[in-house]
Amino acid sequence: MQNRGLLKELIQSFCCLPGVGPKSAQRMAFHLLQRNRQGGEQLSRILAQALQEIAYCAECRTLTETKLCEVCANSQRDTGLLCVVESPADSWIIDQAIGFKGKYFILHGRLSPLDGIGPDQLGIDALEQRLQAGAISEIILATNSTVEGQATAHFIAEIAGKHNIRATRIAYGIPMGGELEFIDSSTLSHAFNGRREI
Amino acid sequence: MQNRGLLKELIQSFCCLPGVGPKSAQRMAFHLLQRNRQGGEQLSRILAQALQEIAYCAECRTLTETKLCEVCANSQRDTGLLCVVESPADSWIIDQAIGFKGKYFILHGRLSPLDGIGPDQLGIDALEQRLQAGAISEIILATNSTVEGQATAHFIAEIAGKHNIRATRIAYGIPMGGELEFIDSSTLSHAFNGRREI
Repeated sequence: MQNRGLLKELIQSFCCLPGVGPKSAQRMAFHLLQRNRQGGEQLSRILAQALQEIAYCAECRTLTETKLCEVCANSQRDTGLLCVVESPADSWIIDQAIGFKGKYFILHGRLSPLDGIGPDQLGIDALEQRLQAGAISEIILATNSTVEGQATAHFIAEIAGKHNIRATRIAYGIPMGGELEFIDSSTLSHAFNGRREI
Repeated sequence: MQNRGLLKELIQSFCCLPGVGPKSAQRMAFHLLQRNRQGGEQLSRILAQALQEIAYCAECRTLTETKLCEVCANSQRDTGLLCVVESPADSWIIDQAIGFKGKYFILHGRLSPLDGIGPDQLGIDALEQRLQAGAISEIILATNSTVEGQATAHFIAEIAGKHNIRATRIAYGIPMGGELEFIDSSTLSHAFNGRREI
């Protein structure tokens, strides 16, 4: 087995990627070695550099290689609006999809006492400091609609209440273009409870 | 966009992997940066090392970091049997699945004149030299069942014929456990044409 050692090690290393099992990992290793060595070299180099340089933004906790991320460093952004999300990917999609012009705060997770994730792990201290600073007029809670995500939203809403800051939750209901027939009952019940005058 | 540069570059680099689009690439980048930096560092290091050290076996053309691969260096293998496959992955699966004890020759592709892949690209010269050496009694053609794979098998069978070496093709037919009802007509027609006495 000695001769195949390095190739097997490479395949195993690809398995650390999310959604990649042994078969896909093998395909990736063969693809790079046989057909795209240049791409492989670039991946290896950029990955090493990214792991070295990318850390958390001092203000919003997103991933960035500079002290402040692009959004936090941008003076054009509305500092009165703060959107709280669970992950950097969530803030990206909000920025791209709706052109939100406020700022973000990234929790890197949700309250989950069983997994040992409490307010400390989510940076609630840093969030409270920002609320205390006084510039924020509305905090938009865009955590996921899971039980933990809802609990996290309520927890932060209470903190906002203490500082007399308006806390809002993004709307949950029927997705645009969704047909009632195929909507799950939990979403349908949210849609009815959240109904508004037209 | 300056601050997000390195992260975007990393996501783009993951897109060079087969079957990985922008969404999966983003998930991979975030996963490694947020949850598995150690795995990411290992992937980067092993990938660089593999690209540096892994080349083609001098005898069978599979991928290996040594001059001769494990199979070619193994004196216990039956040198009289030579199995010709399109890719290193094919020889791996044959070795694992049926414990084939002969040797291999890897074409790294199939004849495809339109894509500029001729006998030179497939190492047919090297293959012919091995046939000429005289130790081989049977050549098993295990190229894929595509039109190009079949053409490649026929092309190599002719060369084997010139050297008076028996050339065989692996059987195509109904897969074990496959139900006739759901088998495509091309496979069914192969199964009928390839019928044998019981």
